[in-house]
Amino acid sequence: RCFHFCKLPGRVMGIRLLRFTSVVIIVLLLVAGALTALLPTIKDDKLPNSRREPKPQSQSALDSFTLIMQTYNRTDLLLKLLNHYQAIPHLHKIIVVWNNIGEKTPEEMWNSLGPHPVPVVFKVQTVNRMRNRLQNFPDLETKAVLMMDDDTLVSAHDLAFAFSVWQQFPEHIVGFVPRKHISTPSGVYSYGSFELQNPGFGNGDQYSMVLIGAAFFHRGYLEDFQQQPEAVYALIDETQNCDDIAMNFLVAKHTGKPSGVFVKPVDIRNLEKDTNTGYSGMWHRAEHLLQRSYCVNKLVNIYDGMPLKYSNIMISQFGFPNYANHKNKM
Amino acid sequence: RCFHFCKLPGRVMGIRLLRFTSVVIIVLLLVAGALTALLPTIKDDKLPNSRREPKPQSQSALDSFTLIMQTYNRTDLLLKLLNHYQAIPHLHKIIVVWNNIGEKTPEEMWNSLGPHPVPVVFKVQTVNRMRNRLQNFPDLETKAVLMMDDDTLVSAHDLAFAFSVWQQFPEHIVGFVPRKHISTPSGVYSYGSFELQNPGFGNGDQYSMVLIGAAFFHRGYLEDFQQQPEAVYALIDETQNCDDIAMNFLVAKHTGKPSGVFVKPVDIRNLEKDTNTGYSGMWHRAEHLLQRSYCVNKLVNIYDGMPLKYSNIMISQFGFPNYANHKNKM
Repeated sequence: RCFHFCKLPGRVMGIRLLRFTSVVIIVLLLVAGALTALLPTIKDDKLPNSRREPKPQSQSALDSFTLIMQTYNRTDLLLKLLNHYQAIPHLHKIIVVWNNIGEKTPEEMWNSLGPHPVPVVFKVQTVNRMRNRLQNFPDLETKAVLMMDDDTLVSAHDLAFAFSVWQQFPEHIVGFVPRKHISTPSGVYSYGSFELQNPGFGNGDQYSMVLIGAAFFHRGYLEDFQQQPEAVYALIDETQNCDDIAMNFLVAKHTGKPSGVFVKPVDIRNLEKDTNTGYSGMWHRAEHLLQRSYCVNKLVNIYDGMPLKYSNIMISQFGFPNYANHKNKM
Repeated sequence: RCFHFCKLPGRVMGIRLLRFTSVVIIVLLLVAGALTALLPTIKDDKLPNSRREPKPQSQSALDSFTLIMQTYNRTDLLLKLLNHYQAIPHLHKIIVVWNNIGEKTPEEMWNSLGPHPVPVVFKVQTVNRMRNRLQNFPDLETKAVLMMDDDTLVSAHDLAFAFSVWQQFPEHIVGFVPRKHISTPSGVYSYGSFELQNPGFGNGDQYSMVLIGAAFFHRGYLEDFQQQPEAVYALIDETQNCDDIAMNFLVAKHTGKPSGVFVKPVDIRNLEKDTNTGYSGMWHRAEHLLQRSYCVNKLVNIYDGMPLKYSNIMISQFGFPNYANHKNKM
């Protein structure tokens, strides 16, 4: 029998064991707490449905693009289009250039109908200018810009493909609407589309511009646009037109190559007639095309030469919608 | 009167004048003769018709290409195709790789039916090998090679366009026949076309090879081909197949990009059934496709990796045959 000695270790060990165990438990709890803090937080907008897909990785600047959409007097179309475009793969953010001067943006409504796949920024303008969309917006975080008119619907498939094409031709305007200029014996240029005579380089047609109202291009060109001669801004403001022609001049001058790469759209639609504002786009004005020919000649003056170059490359997506698009008799 | 003195100058001057005049005449004749020698010579093959078109400028190495066509047991098709291909714009020369061992080439007949727009060289082979066409022929003067199978007819329009595309993508195989490989969970690769499952990079299909039996590529790749591991030649010789797959591996390794660029042909035809030799191509052999899958896996072994990359870019000629090929609802 061991009295004092035996009891003492027991009691000491007992106390120490107790303390030790307590400390261990407390440490474990702290560690558990720390781990919990590192877990992804449950968002405020938790859905009752627990089969919600995990939040996608934040898109890197190289693998995603920013949609810039200027809008005037067609908010109904704008909202319809935003519902479509907000879900395009690889989209990083949407910048809406609000040309409805003095009118409230639909930001409140937009927020109340969240959540949204991407953030939308409404840039309120002070003057209704066509070239407002060509500002070098500080909100831009991606290399690529997708510029769309507020009445144009391009399918997600087309956009995903065209974005991948842009990534292979990042110094070009990669888009869905090709146009051309032709020169005439008098030296005066004319602007148009397929209805104009082919420029005569072999057979088939050529294009020398890709319109920016449905196209991808590098954000660097927005920076460049800020450095153009005043006369260019004056021309665009005077006509409320031709900003896209000016951009093609800029890009062609910069690269020394054709400014654009045309991607043939599978599904592109103009929703103009669906607007209930009754407002139809600028291109319906009687003088629209004449203005654009006028712009081509003015820009040649301003830039002291014709930098636009022709291309006849038309790009489509191999095997989409199905292999019939490349089937042949062999 | 002046006797001696007067006569002397007269006689002296007379002689001198005579000599001088003779010298002048002789010099003029020599100059005329030299000028005549510099004039273009009338060729032996002068035509009775004096409205013959002027001989075109010699095509520069950058603006023209050399057709290399290997042939075996289909001389009737060969000659039919030569009549077509000899007139293709930008063609510099034709090299016929004669795999009919021991048989006389049709060179005599060819010459008797001249003149021809371009020179043709018949390269007589000693062994009937598939890879004979991949020699680095000293006859090659152009940067670009157009390689065609001896049963394939591609329209001049298609060739002119594809050549212009190659000039924009000179490090790629630019051609009309896309194929792909797919990888399977077991790590074994399979070779095929649209019938194979899509590789799964988004929607639509992908290709990872462009066959050299109807394609443009840079002559540098023929030089490179001479530097490949022996096992590659052994594989091609063993299968009498797969030289084109090997070339795609070579190009992909070299560029780190997809080896080919697919140009959708408007008019491509296989004339196989038109031959009166009764010889049908190698691809009719039962084991043809299995061989090609076999080759893909062997080449991955030889090159210690899979260098082929996927692309879904399909290029067509804008506005050819007419604008309907890019018309849209907008």
